[in-house]
Order: sequence, then structure tokens, then C-alpha cells
Amino acid sequence: MRLTKQVRVRFGHADPARIVYYPRFFEWFHDTFETWFDEVLQINYAEVLNGRRVGFPTVQVATEFKEPARFGEVVDVEMFLSRLTERSGTVEYRVRREGRLLATASVKVVAMNLDTHTSTTIPEDIRTALEPYLEEDDEGPNTARLYG
Amino acid sequence: MRLTKQVRVRFGHADPARIVYYPRFFEWFHDTFETWFDEVLQINYAEVLNGRRVGFPTVQVATEFKEPARFGEVVDVEMFLSRLTERSGTVEYRVRREGRLLATASVKVVAMNLDTHTSTTIPEDIRTALEPYLEEDDEGPNTARLYG
Amino acid sequence: MRLTKQVRVRFGHADPARIVYYPRFFEWFHDTFETWFDEVLQINYAEVLNGRRVGFPTVQVATEFKEPARFGEVVDVEMFLSRLTERSGTVEYRVRREGRLLATASVKVVAMNLDTHTSTTIPEDIRTALEPYLEEDDEGPNTARLYG
Amino acid sequence: MRLTKQVRVRFGHADPARIVYYPRFFEWFHDTFETWFDEVLQINYAEVLNGRRVGFPTVQVATEFKEPARFGEVVDVEMFLSRLTERSGTVEYRVRREGRLLATASVKVVAMNLDTHTSTTIPEDIRTALEPYLEEDDEGPNTARLYG
Repeated sequence: MRLTKQVRVRFGHADPARIVYYPRFFEWFHDTFETWFDEVLQINYAEVLNGRRVGFPTVQVATEFKEPARFGEVVDVEMFLSRLTERSGTVEYRVRREGRLLATASVKVVAMNLDTHTSTTIPEDIRTALEPYLEEDDEGPNTARLYG
Repeated sequence: MRLTKQVRVRFGHADPARIVYYPRFFEWFHDTFETWFDEVLQINYAEVLNGRRVGFPTVQVATEFKEPARFGEVVDVEMFLSRLTERSGTVEYRVRREGRLLATASVKVVAMNLDTHTSTTIPEDIRTALEPYLEEDDEGPNTARLYG
Repeated sequence: MRLTKQVRVRFGHADPARIVYYPRFFEWFHDTFETWFDEVLQINYAEVLNGRRVGFPTVQVATEFKEPARFGEVVDVEMFLSRLTERSGTVEYRVRREGRLLATASVKVVAMNLDTHTSTTIPEDIRTALEPYLEEDDEGPNTARLYG
Repeated sequence: MRLTKQVRVRFGHADPARIVYYPRFFEWFHDTFETWFDEVLQINYAEVLNGRRVGFPTVQVATEFKEPARFGEVVDVEMFLSRLTERSGTVEYRVRREGRLLATASVKVVAMNLDTHTSTTIPEDIRTALEPYLEEDDEGPNTARLYG
């Protein structure tokens, strides 16, 4: 199961080459992650942080940008999980324009107690809500060529 | 050889957990990349894009965030190259606070002709200027655990 | 007539005080302006810039931030026009949370030929589409106290 | 007395029209405000917020963008005060390129107790440090034409 969110490339996302400035992709990813909680899991993301004092800092990222997304285009940001443990998960993002894969990312987050700033377990209700989104695919980022 | 640039974590970089919102790191990295051209290589980065019509889109990224950088802290962003070919390079970033490694990133960029939007060779003068910054270290991002 | 767009305050919009970092409001305003073209007027905003070569740079802004918007809250961004001439318009924004006015802004934009970078007339079809959104209200930003 | 800070227009500041996307100006202004505390007044800005629990939310803004700043250009951001009372101040910004005025802004901030979220007095040492920066000029933003 995946969440798919439509994003239109706005003026403020695009750079002088008229394509998405790549740090903006990570903002889209984080917004999609929050949307997932708020609108899909029906668990208020801000309340998890402010109320329960559990956050999900990003610890590892791998991304491949295959083709640019241009100012004015509408793209789909897909999101699912490739991995889920007691204390962490790897969130996968796929950005497509009319089905064509533009970008692919794996983002590992860990559960953190925001008062003690130490690792904690993912709250039970959240982990249960996330489980249906565990999925495998073979389109993940290939960063082997980074150094090759 | 490395370029080191000091950055203070500004209010607008930090999130409600009072640490750097991770997409901002990539903005720092890109700003450091541009500073390298403008101030170190003495090759105007905007003129490379606007005048010579050569850009450097990011195609692959691996990043590890080991420890947070907090609002108000001053960190060092180091930059060098782990790889340089005729048409692409991998730029390495290391973020430290008083020597302690907070984040590490490898960012692969390719040279692109901005008129035809096709791959091109890195201009000779730029490649020559970049060569002294080729270096190896063993602190690069370990993203093996993303799926492990 | 007004356009109303719902925005949820995302993690990346909020600052260490957990309220919206004020420059983000202007990003919301610009996104709402673009949404107006794309979804309401049915005139593709990117195509106006890229194809017709007409842009709408901002020349004057007045804003009053009355109450903060907090991380996780859902607010309404309303948009209409207080003024429309052959070459410029003043776009009004009102941000509310459950009806309560949080922020109010007046943003004057001018039509610009993007090739010659000189003032031009607002294209006829766009001006006709904008006219129904001309409206008066008495909630506009009061910046008299800036210097008082 | 004024603080002047040099800013180079970075790739990520510029939009598809290759000029500064106007919300970025407000980020520059806020960064300059923080620099003023940290480097000029020698009062750690983050420590004022985190330690003393006093913040300076923006309540009113007037801005005039006279000419665009282009990707790659170096501009000066000048900062001083046009008004300072027990509980609030109006901070003035002037952006110039080689002396030529590109943008002018007045930003009113109020002192706020970050625990009670109510208005408070500006701490004595901060007000004393700010006083030398009180100055008048006749280049402030003219927003009269917003509705004219």
C-alpha cells in the first residue's frame, strides 16, 4: 500500500534553470510524511511531537534524481516503507510525472524521545498504522555509482 | 585540499525541535559549492550557468546525519571531491561542530548543457581548478544500514 | 469573490518558537496566487511566464501579523484583489484560523515583459478573469503604527 | 550607525526569472537581524530565546522592491532602527547593489515572553546596545501607492 500525493512545481520550488532546486524535494518528502500521519493514519503529527514528545529525526538518506521536474508540472509523490523495526523505519519516496520515474529516495528515520533526546520505541498505535505500508520494489535509489 | 565554510544555525534553519530541519543542510551544501567557485576557484558560478550555459544538476545523494546541529550553534561545512571524471564529479561534505562530525554527504553532480539539456564535459578550466580538491577519507556516509 | 485555500502548518514552516517563521507566509501567498491561476482561472501560470513571457514581480508589500499560526494548525488563506489597473494589481491575503484573523497582507504586483524586463499590460484574458475577484474590505494591514 | 552585511544571490534564492524570489528577502532580513545580535552586539541571539525566553516576533511589515537582485550578484543589506520603545522596535533594511537602492523595508518587532506568550519589555542590555543604531532616513518603503 502506498500514499500518493500530487504536487505542482511552484515558482518558489524552481531555480534559474527552471527545474526543482533539489533541496525542495526533501521538503516535499517531509510534507508527504506529515500528510501521511494527519490525513491517512489519522494521527495528528504535531500532537505526536508536542504532546507525546516523540519525534522522527532523519539519520540516513539515499536519493537518485533521474530526470528534472519543471516549473508548472504536476508530479506524484508516492510514499511507502521498505523497512520497519521497533525503533526505526525506512521511508521510500518515488516521484513520477505521468508514470515516468523522476526521483527515488530512501529516508531512514528513528524514533526519538524529544525530552531526553535519546532513541525510543515507535509508539504501538503508530507502528500498527504503518505496517500496511510495508512494501518492496526494485526502483529504490542506486547510489553505488556515487564513487564508481 | 578542502574548503571549509562556517555556518551559524539561524532561526529559519531550525525546526520546532530546535535543530536543523534536514532539507536545510542541502541548501548549505549548495551554497558552499557556489562559494567554492566564486571565492576559491575565482570562477563566477552564475556566469558559468548564465554565460557558458553549463549547469551541474545533482543526480545522486547519500547522507548520514549522525548528530543534530542546534539553533545558534556555529558549525564548519567542509567540502572536497572524492571523484572527478570528464563529465561528472562527487562532492563530499562534512559538517562538524568543534571537530565533532555531525553529518556527512556525498553528492554526485553531472555537467549539463543548459540549452540542449544533455550531458556535456566539465569545462577544462573548471576541471583543472577542481583537481587539487580530490581527496580520500573514510568518513563518508554509510547508507548500508538503510535497508539492513 | 475570494479564493480560499487551506494550509496546514508543516514542521518545515515552523521555527524554534513552534510558530510560522514569517517569511513562510509569503511563500504561502505566492503559492495561493499560482493556485488561483492554475485551478480557478484555468490559466496555466507557468505557461504565462514561460510561454507568453509575462511575469508578475512584487513591488510593494504591507503585512500585519496579528496572532501566530502554530505547527500543526490548519489555516485558511483567502485571496482577492483590492485594486486592478491596466498594468498592475494589489492582491489581498487574509489568513484565518477558524474564522479568527491571524494575518493580513496587501501585495502589489506589476505585469512585466520577461524578455525586455519592462512594464507591460496585463493580458486581456487574465484581467477579465481577475475582475470578479475585485472586492473591498476593512481588514487590510494597518502599518501606520510602524513608525508611530 | 548601521550594520551592513554582504549577501551573494545564490542559486537557491533565485526563481525561474533568475531574480530573487521575494520571500527570500525576508530570510536575509532575519539572518541580518540575528547577525546583529551575535556579531555586533555580542549578545547570543539563540541564548536570548532559549535561555532568557525572550523572542521578537514580527508584527508589521512594509516593503518596497524597486529593482530586482539577480542570481550571482553581490548586494549589501543595511540594517538600522527607525524606532525603539520599551516593548517594540522598527527595524529598517535597505538592499543596495553598488550603492543603488534595490529594496527597502520596515519591520516592526515586539518583545515577547516565550513562556507566557505575552508582550514584555526589551531587556535593558539589549535596548542599550540597540540605541546607537537609531537613525532617520528618507528612503523608507512608500506603500501609499498600494491602493492608489
